[in-house]
Parts: sequence; C-alpha cells; structure tokens
Amino acid sequence: MSKESLSLNDSDTIQEGQRVLLYLDPRRTWLVQVSKNSIPFHTHAGIVQLSSIIGKKFGESVPTTLAESIFLLRPVALDFIMKSERRTQIVYPKDFSYIVSRSGIRGGSLVIECGTGSGALTTYFASIVAPDGLVHTFEAREDFSAIAQKNVAKAGLTQYVRFENSSLLTASQGLRENFYDLALLDTGDPWELLKVAHKVLKGSGFVFCICPTTNQLERVVETMKDGMFCDVESVEILLRQIEARAGKTRPSMRMIGHTCYLASGRKIVQGAQEGAITSTD
Amino acid sequence: MSKESLSLNDSDTIQEGQRVLLYLDPRRTWLVQVSKNSIPFHTHAGIVQLSSIIGKKFGESVPTTLAESIFLLRPVALDFIMKSERRTQIVYPKDFSYIVSRSGIRGGSLVIECGTGSGALTTYFASIVAPDGLVHTFEAREDFSAIAQKNVAKAGLTQYVRFENSSLLTASQGLRENFYDLALLDTGDPWELLKVAHKVLKGSGFVFCICPTTNQLERVVETMKDGMFCDVESVEILLRQIEARAGKTRPSMRMIGHTCYLASGRKIVQGAQEGAITSTD
Amino acid sequence: MSKESLSLNDSDTIQEGQRVLLYLDPRRTWLVQVSKNSIPFHTHAGIVQLSSIIGKKFGESVPTTLAESIFLLRPVALDFIMKSERRTQIVYPKDFSYIVSRSGIRGGSLVIECGTGSGALTTYFASIVAPDGLVHTFEAREDFSAIAQKNVAKAGLTQYVRFENSSLLTASQGLRENFYDLALLDTGDPWELLKVAHKVLKGSGFVFCICPTTNQLERVVETMKDGMFCDVESVEILLRQIEARAGKTRPSMRMIGHTCYLASGRKIVQGAQEGAITSTD
Amino acid sequence: MSKESLSLNDSDTIQEGQRVLLYLDPRRTWLVQVSKNSIPFHTHAGIVQLSSIIGKKFGESVPTTLAESIFLLRPVALDFIMKSERRTQIVYPKDFSYIVSRSGIRGGSLVIECGTGSGALTTYFASIVAPDGLVHTFEAREDFSAIAQKNVAKAGLTQYVRFENSSLLTASQGLRENFYDLALLDTGDPWELLKVAHKVLKGSGFVFCICPTTNQLERVVETMKDGMFCDVESVEILLRQIEARAGKTRPSMRMIGHTCYLASGRKIVQGAQEGAITSTD
Repeated sequence: MSKESLSLNDSDTIQEGQRVLLYLDPRRTWLVQVSKNSIPFHTHAGIVQLSSIIGKKFGESVPTTLAESIFLLRPVALDFIMKSERRTQIVYPKDFSYIVSRSGIRGGSLVIECGTGSGALTTYFASIVAPDGLVHTFEAREDFSAIAQKNVAKAGLTQYVRFENSSLLTASQGLRENFYDLALLDTGDPWELLKVAHKVLKGSGFVFCICPTTNQLERVVETMKDGMFCDVESVEILLRQIEARAGKTRPSMRMIGHTCYLASGRKIVQGAQEGAITSTD
Repeated sequence: MSKESLSLNDSDTIQEGQRVLLYLDPRRTWLVQVSKNSIPFHTHAGIVQLSSIIGKKFGESVPTTLAESIFLLRPVALDFIMKSERRTQIVYPKDFSYIVSRSGIRGGSLVIECGTGSGALTTYFASIVAPDGLVHTFEAREDFSAIAQKNVAKAGLTQYVRFENSSLLTASQGLRENFYDLALLDTGDPWELLKVAHKVLKGSGFVFCICPTTNQLERVVETMKDGMFCDVESVEILLRQIEARAGKTRPSMRMIGHTCYLASGRKIVQGAQEGAITSTD
Repeated sequence: MSKESLSLNDSDTIQEGQRVLLYLDPRRTWLVQVSKNSIPFHTHAGIVQLSSIIGKKFGESVPTTLAESIFLLRPVALDFIMKSERRTQIVYPKDFSYIVSRSGIRGGSLVIECGTGSGALTTYFASIVAPDGLVHTFEAREDFSAIAQKNVAKAGLTQYVRFENSSLLTASQGLRENFYDLALLDTGDPWELLKVAHKVLKGSGFVFCICPTTNQLERVVETMKDGMFCDVESVEILLRQIEARAGKTRPSMRMIGHTCYLASGRKIVQGAQEGAITSTD
Repeated sequence: MSKESLSLNDSDTIQEGQRVLLYLDPRRTWLVQVSKNSIPFHTHAGIVQLSSIIGKKFGESVPTTLAESIFLLRPVALDFIMKSERRTQIVYPKDFSYIVSRSGIRGGSLVIECGTGSGALTTYFASIVAPDGLVHTFEAREDFSAIAQKNVAKAGLTQYVRFENSSLLTASQGLRENFYDLALLDTGDPWELLKVAHKVLKGSGFVFCICPTTNQLERVVETMKDGMFCDVESVEILLRQIEARAGKTRPSMRMIGHTCYLASGRKIVQGAQEGAITSTD
C-alpha cells in the first residue's frame, strides 16, 4: 500500500508523498500531497512551505508567512470525499453513514454498487470493508468512472475496489449469485435493478436505494415489497450544524434541507422445496 | 469465534446455536438463539418451532401455526443493539453511524470509550474495528458493565472489546499515550475527560462527545476549543421514517424529536521545540 | 353574543355560563363551562367546585381538595380547538397559523372552506375574520357538519360562520364569483375543487390546499400551475417542543413528525380584452 | 385610510397611488406604488410601464417589453414585511404566525411590543388587531423606530400602532395595568422585562419571548416559571419548502436552519384575599 493511503499503520510522522489535510478554520481546509519538491502553497492566510511539513507530526501546526496557524490533520475517508473531484451530486456523510450501520457492512463485507458516480460512496464503503472485503462498482459513463477511480486512488483504497465501466444490468449475467452483503443502487431508476440486486445478494442481505424524489422512493419501495425483500424501510436524515458558544448557543441559520431518501430491504429467498414456483429465486 | 457471532464467514445455512432475527413485520421482530432443544416460540401470530429452523437459509421464511410467514434474518450489529438489554438511554444508530464516518474508524482502528453504558456504541464500534482493532471501554458502574458485556457477547464481539469496570479518570495514569484513533465520551460531564482523551489520542485523532443537553454541548465545546482540539464541530441528526406507499406517500406521524447533540474535534499536538511551554501535551 | 364566547369585551371576572380552561400542568387541562349549578369537577389532583369559580378573575388559581393549584385561564380559539370533539384528523396550529399569515386574512376577510371536518380551521378562521368577515364552510357528511357546528358554537363564533351541509362542487353554481379572499381546500382530492375555488376567489386571492401525502401535493400543485394560479408554493412546517430548564435544556424526545403539506397559490385573472379566449375566467 | 393600505374595502381595480406586488417568478417580485407619473420600471425581464397598470384588476398580468408576463398581486401584510427596509434580523412568518394563533390575538386585541426593530411583527400584529385593536410598540433606538414607522406606514397600518421611542422599562410607570392581551418581548434580555409584561397584561394574557439562543430561552423560561406565568411552553418552528413537480417531487435542497425559539406563558394573578402578600400583582 502506498504511503498516501488511509493505511492505519502509517507512522504519526508525516512522510514524503503523504496526503495531509491543512486546516485553517472550518471553511478553509485543503487536502495536499507533501513532497520535498512541492512548490509553496498559497492561501489567503499566507504561504505554507509544504516541503517543511515532512517530518512533522499529525496534529501539529505550522505558521504561514502571515503568522497564522495551519493544523496538519490526517485525512480520513470523509475528508477525501469532501475534497474529491465531482461531476455528480454526491451522497452525504449523514446518509452513507446510516447505510453502513443499518446494513451492517464492515471489514470483510462484499458490496456491489451501481452507479459509481464520483466515487464518494465507493470510497467510504472501501474504507470500511478493507482489508478483506471488496466494493464491486458499476458505472456506465466512462468519464464518471475515470473520475471515481482517481478519487478512490487518492484515498489509497484502489485495491479494495473493482471498477466496471458498464451498467449493472448489462453485466448481470456474469455476476456471482448469493454473494454480496449489500447492494447499493444510486441510479435514476433503481427499481429496474432490483431483480439483479436480489440475485447477487446473499439471503437476508441488504439492498439500499438512493432516492432524491418521493416518486422514486415510492416506486422502488413498492417494487421491493413485491416478494423480493422484507423489512422494507424508508428514511430521510437531516443534519443540523449547531453553533455552540459560551452564552450564545444556537443552531446554524443555514442548513441542507434535503439530499435524498434512503429505501432499504433485506433479501427474501425461497426454501428448496418451494423454489420451483417462484420468480424471484 | 462462536457460531452465534457476527462472523462474516458464517455459512448461509442456519446452524445449531446461531442467533437469528425473526421478522414478522416492522413492529414484531425477535432475536432468538436456535437449538435442536429449543422450546416452541410463541408469538401473537402463532407458534414457531425454533428447532425446525436449523438447516434453513437466511432469508427464507417459516410458517407459524397460524399460517403467518416469519422471515429468518441474519442479525447485524444494529439488530443486536436494538434488541439488547438496556438500563441506560442508548445512543441511536443515526448518531453512532455519523461518529464512525466522521472519525474515519474502520477495521484496525483503536477506540477508547467512556462510559460503556449498555454497550450499544461498544457493540457497533467493535463490529467496525474488527478483526484487527480494539474498543477499550470504561464504565464505573458494575451493573452497567455486566449488562454491556452480556450484550457484546451476544453479538459475538467480545474479543474486540476490553472492558474496564472503572472510571476513565481513575484509570488514566496507566493508559498508553498517543495511541487511540477515537475517544468517545458519553458521560454527564464530558469536559472533565477531555484532558485524558487528549493525552491518549494520536495526533489529529478524534474526540466525540455525546451531549443530551445544550448546556453540556456548550461547555464541552468551549473546553475543547481551549487549545486541545481543532476542527471542533457540533451537530444534531434527525431521522424521519417515511411511509412510502403507492399513491399515498408521506412521512410518519410520529418521530423521535431528540436524542443528543454530537460534539467533535481533532487532537492538536505541539511540535518538539514548542512542547515545554504547553499544558495540553 | 353569549357570555361563553371569545368576545374581547368580556370582563376579567368569570361569570355564570362562561367557559374556562382549567390548567393543572401541561398535560392536564380541562375546558369547562362554569355555573352556580355545576356539579363538583373531579380530577386526579382532587376536586374543584366549579360554582366557586364564579366571580374569580382569569389568571387566578383555585385549590383542589387535594391542595393542588388549578389556574383559571381564558380560553382562546386554539384552546377550544385542541379540546374540541373530533371525528377527523385536525389541521394543527402550526399549519393553520401559517395559512392565516401567508394569505393575509384578518378582520373582515371572507373565507370559503371545504370540507369543514371537525371545524378546527373553521373555528380559527372565524376568530380571525370576526367581527366583519365570514367563513363559508362546506361539508358533505352530515355527522361531521353537526360536530363542527357544536365545536364552533362552544367557541362562541357561530355568527361568523355559514355552514353548508353539501359538497362545494354541488353548491358551486349558486356561489358569488370574485368574492372570497381565501379558499381553503381540505379534502382528499383538492384538485377537483380548484376551478370552483378560482371562480369564487377575488383576483389575486389565495387558495390553500391541505395535503397529507406527497401524491396529493404533487397533483394539486401541477393543476394549480395550469393557468389558474401564480405564486404557487409548497411547504411543510415542523414544530418542536423544547424543554427549557436551568442547566439541562434540550428538545423534547418525542415530536409530531408529520401532519400535512400546504400548497398555496394566488388567483390569476384575464384582462377584459383577453377574457373570451380563456377557460379559467 | 389611504388607498395604498391593506384596507379590505379596496376595489378589485388598481388605483392611483396603490401599492402592487409585481410577480415574475418566486425569486423575482417587486413591491411598487403605481402612479400615472411613475417612471418606467426596469427588470431583468424587461420594462413595465407602471402608469399603464392603473385600472387593471388584481390578478391580471401585464407584458414586459421583453414579452414576459408580470402578475399584479394585491400585497398582504406578509408581502409588505418581506419587502420592508430592514436594519435588524426579522422574525419570520412561520414564527409570528404561531404567536398569533397561540396567543389568540385577533380583531380588537391589545398588544404591547418591545422592541419594535424593523416593525415586521408590528406590521403583522397591526393587520390582525385592526380595526378595533392596537399595537403599542417600544423601541429605544431612534433609527430603528423611524424605519419601523416607515414600514408600517407603507402597509397602511399606522392608525393601529402607537410607536414609542423609548425602552419599555423606562416607560413602564405610565402604562395601564391589566390591559393588554399579548406582550411580545423581542430584546436581547427579555427576562428583564417580564415584571413589566406581567403588570400590564390582563390576567391569563400571553407573554411571548423571541429567543435566538438556547441560553436566552433557558433564562427567560426559568424567570417566567418563577410565580408570574403558567402554561409556560418553548417551541421552535421549522419551515421546509417543497418542490412539487410531476414525477420529481422533493424538499428544497436549502432551508433556513434556525431563526429563533419562542417561549410563552400566561399571566397568573393573585386573588383579592391573597393580594397583599405578593409582589407580582
């Protein structure tokens, strides 16, 4: 694994080639790769010599040329995601966090995803299933897939992801059945993919669908309930920033009002003796 | 690892001693341990012979004596948590999910927690850091610690948790410094533990505080900002169930209005040359 | 106007026949009519002699036989509504408040409503348009209309309401055109009533539709936008109780997660020279 | 009353001097006063001759020079408020609507307010208590009071408001006791004004406090509960815009996350026989 990765065995000392999150304040952070050959890094708060960061410890600060302190933070998956190149609307941390906890994926889990988009979910899933699991991700658009691969590579998680530049439907014939722990559907018409998701999931495995609109939510939930999945659930998650300050604590004036609804279900299978009469097995 | 655990290598076939989530409908689910010696399991929807479940596959259903179908689901950490024995208010999935994604903990991470409470967070953290990480958890009350140990054991995660029946403050002298990736503080006065949390965290490591009230939130955030942590953030997360049904989709009439606020920060450290003059290192 | 009414000229002293809100604590309040012939009023907190209340002032308290204090409050429209007899789901204060402020109705306004339901909105609208305005309300179900009339009478607002026991559609021929300031549609299929609402509203007047589901909301909004209304807007309003207490302030654990969506628009009219070619005028 | 006012007896035809809300789309609306001498009104969507609007009906549209339609709407109090000149943070419609419904104020009610600020609440209250009620409003800052007077005048509601350019505390000696139905406190330290509010309110009358922070809320609620008010309640109200469109309905991505908390209570009075021993009567 390369030095810039999310590897947990990294030393506390920042090394050549490593990615570091520079933190000035909540609104001004930068994700950089440090090198002894780095050119000076310019910010509104002054200049930082990235080469001088090598050998420092994570959590230390360095002064800019304008005498402001910039903290050197170890980026986690979420930092890579929030700083990634995007062409698509990304799924938010509040949402992908919940998908992971509800579906129970963890080290060793096998996840199938469609579509990859900018790779935000791919990155987070990969960080969770590593080192023994895999995220198998499908994206029909070549430009999106290329960006996602770059984003996942930056986070050092490439070895836990298998990228496919095709639609899940097209590729479905060649997929292993009863294999994945979670199928994540993030396309405009997730109901079209439920049969494939059902086929490739383990019995009792989770499908999760990202639905920006109530119309998508309603349609995918109705399709899920049609004999393929049980424990079907729909939620929306709202995150509110709180400005906690001595004597004047209050929620932030602005918030994200909506990202998506999440629909989930668990794969139903037919027993051996009943198998012949059903269409879902 | 015992058969009833969350192990990912479990076969798809239900075996003697395994724990199974029986699913009748969203409001009627039961977490049982199956055995050939199990007595009949009575529900409002009829009786299920648990012994007859052995050999079935996860995702299959069995009929009750009243001809209702009960699905046999593989419990994930969240199911164990929601079915656990509780003496304390538990932290909700919407909340602990976010803690995991924001702090970036994953397989191999090292977490320190105080207090253990009923072990809900402990269980989820353990499922995520396994197999190479550890949750080191402190609980002063013996009765709570005993319940938590039972709950974690049911989920098959005991080997990833080190329980301490003492307060974190008392035990702080013997702890390894600069060692943990996440410190989780779930006590009535988390500000009292921030110095210890700072000491045992790696540089740039996360502290997360569970604060039911705005007063706790304000005080702990003010203390965090006092030179020990940067990237200090406070959020509250709301989860809304949606009832998605053909032609009549709407949010649920009832919802949980509040569980807790979450305050987080990342450990700041002083460089070698500056170390002597600070009180926080 | 009878003594029990919401009349603003009522003396501060409680009189024979007047309705009083007995307040013990937030969960235990009762709306009673006092009389010198009242039988003793029994509560969990002891007995109150209603006859002894006559001559007391609003805001005073009386002791129960168990020495608890019960406050004597002057009921406002919202108290009458929350204590009214109901057969239907009522629209909540958070919702009808917004309708009143957005539509601008006030003393003298003319409101048309369909259906009356239990008369909750009718009661509040009547209290606002009095003494010079009118609420003209339609309800096809006789039992609902009867209950609503009783509820409005209790609040002393009968003279500001004209009840019709018929559907608005059936009655639409006889209605005055370009007359009302607000049309309130609270039926399962509000889109069916938009043409009538348009006809009877003044130019620029507001229509408001109560929509429990996203499906109703979508359909009624699409129909509104079809040349009849402009400034079409959809909102949902959430009310959260806060438990403010010294040192432990936090939102309530439980809250109402959903009542309804509100869709509104303002009537478009065609100029004289264009009138012949449109279907909406 | 002047022609530009909110008067309900205005004809449906737009007249010289009248204020009209020009509506192009939800984000582009203008509140103008029409006159035969008006200069052309320029918008991004073309030019409108305001003089040509005279004689048109409310709800009609006029074409701009770029052939876009602009609708001529009759402004209600909320339109005046949203278009008013502001130097202070205004209270939002979702909030002042609730204050009106909870407190039960309506035509004829007597309201006392401190401080006036930009006059947003003053305007709305005045529209509701007219024609027989009054809003008595206090503002220590002369510049704010001047702006508020201008804003209220534009809405044609001056005769229902009595402005005082002083603090409520200073003026409290000269105020009528047991007189007002609602006391609205919108200052940084509302707890300082509770005794005055209690004195001037009718028994059982409502006090409402606007609290941007949890600290203010907590302090004012604790003070209210200290023998002066009962039925003490704290709420926050969230308004979410919904984008309802055929086949793709969803909440808006952005929303206002916080404006203020609202604390309310009802005045407690002592009976005649107890009066001597209390300080609140």
